[in-house]
Amino acid sequence: MYFQYPLELIGTFFFAISGALAMQDKDHDWFAAGFTGFITAIGGGTIRDMMLGSYPLVWIGDIHFLYAVLAGVVMAIIFFRLFIRLRRTFLLFDTLGISFFTILGVEKAMSLGVRPEIAAIMGMFTAVMGGVIRDTLANELPVIFRKEIYATACLAGAIVYLVLDIHTPLERNYNLLISISVIILIRLLAVKFKLALPGFRKIR
Amino acid sequence: MYFQYPLELIGTFFFAISGALAMQDKDHDWFAAGFTGFITAIGGGTIRDMMLGSYPLVWIGDIHFLYAVLAGVVMAIIFFRLFIRLRRTFLLFDTLGISFFTILGVEKAMSLGVRPEIAAIMGMFTAVMGGVIRDTLANELPVIFRKEIYATACLAGAIVYLVLDIHTPLERNYNLLISISVIILIRLLAVKFKLALPGFRKIR
Amino acid sequence: MYFQYPLELIGTFFFAISGALAMQDKDHDWFAAGFTGFITAIGGGTIRDMMLGSYPLVWIGDIHFLYAVLAGVVMAIIFFRLFIRLRRTFLLFDTLGISFFTILGVEKAMSLGVRPEIAAIMGMFTAVMGGVIRDTLANELPVIFRKEIYATACLAGAIVYLVLDIHTPLERNYNLLISISVIILIRLLAVKFKLALPGFRKIR
Repeated sequence: MYFQYPLELIGTFFFAISGALAMQDKDHDWFAAGFTGFITAIGGGTIRDMMLGSYPLVWIGDIHFLYAVLAGVVMAIIFFRLFIRLRRTFLLFDTLGISFFTILGVEKAMSLGVRPEIAAIMGMFTAVMGGVIRDTLANELPVIFRKEIYATACLAGAIVYLVLDIHTPLERNYNLLISISVIILIRLLAVKFKLALPGFRKIR
Repeated sequence: MYFQYPLELIGTFFFAISGALAMQDKDHDWFAAGFTGFITAIGGGTIRDMMLGSYPLVWIGDIHFLYAVLAGVVMAIIFFRLFIRLRRTFLLFDTLGISFFTILGVEKAMSLGVRPEIAAIMGMFTAVMGGVIRDTLANELPVIFRKEIYATACLAGAIVYLVLDIHTPLERNYNLLISISVIILIRLLAVKFKLALPGFRKIR
Repeated sequence: MYFQYPLELIGTFFFAISGALAMQDKDHDWFAAGFTGFITAIGGGTIRDMMLGSYPLVWIGDIHFLYAVLAGVVMAIIFFRLFIRLRRTFLLFDTLGISFFTILGVEKAMSLGVRPEIAAIMGMFTAVMGGVIRDTLANELPVIFRKEIYATACLAGAIVYLVLDIHTPLERNYNLLISISVIILIRLLAVKFKLALPGFRKIR
């Protein structure tokens, strides 16, 4: 896919914006905006590569990712009001981001020779772990534990990708399209219809 | 010890159950139960191996650990009420788990050539870090900072194992028995008699 | 610089004291004091080296760092009242610590062949990440997100060091002196005059 590299950078850019905006209710300063933007954008891939022992980390080996983060943070500071008004648009960007990062994470893990079950987990980690670290640092319950289906959509898309990749002769580009669409669809339907997984029963 | 591998899997299984049950008061869903079960079960060994630079991580190199986690989470979802009623039994399982994981962690670290002091810390990390990450993600004070002696028991058992291993000709199996018993005893006595380490003095 | 190694150990010692004192309002015990002292002192360098894939970690390869931590924790327990009274003195020690650790982190990263932009981030991480982990475990908003300029001072000093190192023929020892002074000055002036970066605008 010719567009993979620019899309990765664009995904990093959007994740950095969403991370920089994440702590806007904490009365934080520019540094905090930059730090959370950075963590959100590169956290997932960093956890994945550190768990797989794959060095150098993507953003350490290729400086363009750092610039994409910086650009996102600067945009978030300058166009703050606009982005807050566009919050609904952001749901779309975030969804595009996690769907794309999931499948890229799966492919990276598979290329390092792990089993498909592990690759599916690594795909999900790539997409959601940046947000988990961001929320944990901000003293909030991580997004993946909140009601709407989020990480589960990533996991489902990762499994679809792996099943099609291993058990069918489907070409990679079509597979990417299908599995990314699965994540986007599940996520957007979950938000629209407030779908949630069955709750774990509480005592009493 | 012939039983080491199955015991490791069983320990992982029980840790996954306790992790999945841990967030039951947070109104979380099946995914969150699975995620916390996974983190609790594999977190400690993952931290240890990432700090030691020992790749592949245990659960990435051997898929059976992932299945043990899945089995534990499914059990926790199905037999939820039973497990809550058996909470006292669980203290025993958790204690068995941390004592066994501590000594396995010590041995793994020693086999990688670190000094005994470091191996003792790695043993304790193996046992408690999964719970630390789980509690931190759930926005709770980690279990190791709460009153009862917990991590300290692991550290004590690790030191007993290392002293006996290095300074006596005691056979490994007997050493395992002794040091694991030390951890279990300290922990159960601490819970029964509400023992605690001296408190760090507060201001005023 | 002949004094580098002893200064590293002394920095570790002081960070361990400040970490052990950090949770004094949480009614924690000696173990918790030791654990937070340990995390605070070795956390930043550990994160840096794990991200760079540089093994063994400093404190695993050289046992003296562990002893420096232990000495710091024991000091904190024994001289608790004294240290609390000396809190203002501690600001100075902490500032010396972060300034020194920042530049050491930058140099370590550069010696591993990463780009200067990455080395600057690694320098800052070395100085502040121990405190970030400590605060996150203690369920508090990390120090770097609070009002006064803290991590930003480290980043500024790291950039000064790198610019002088790459673009001037200045000798290393002078560069160390200058860049460390920059961090100390920014930090102390920020505390004295309550300087802060521009706040990220809140909604309404």
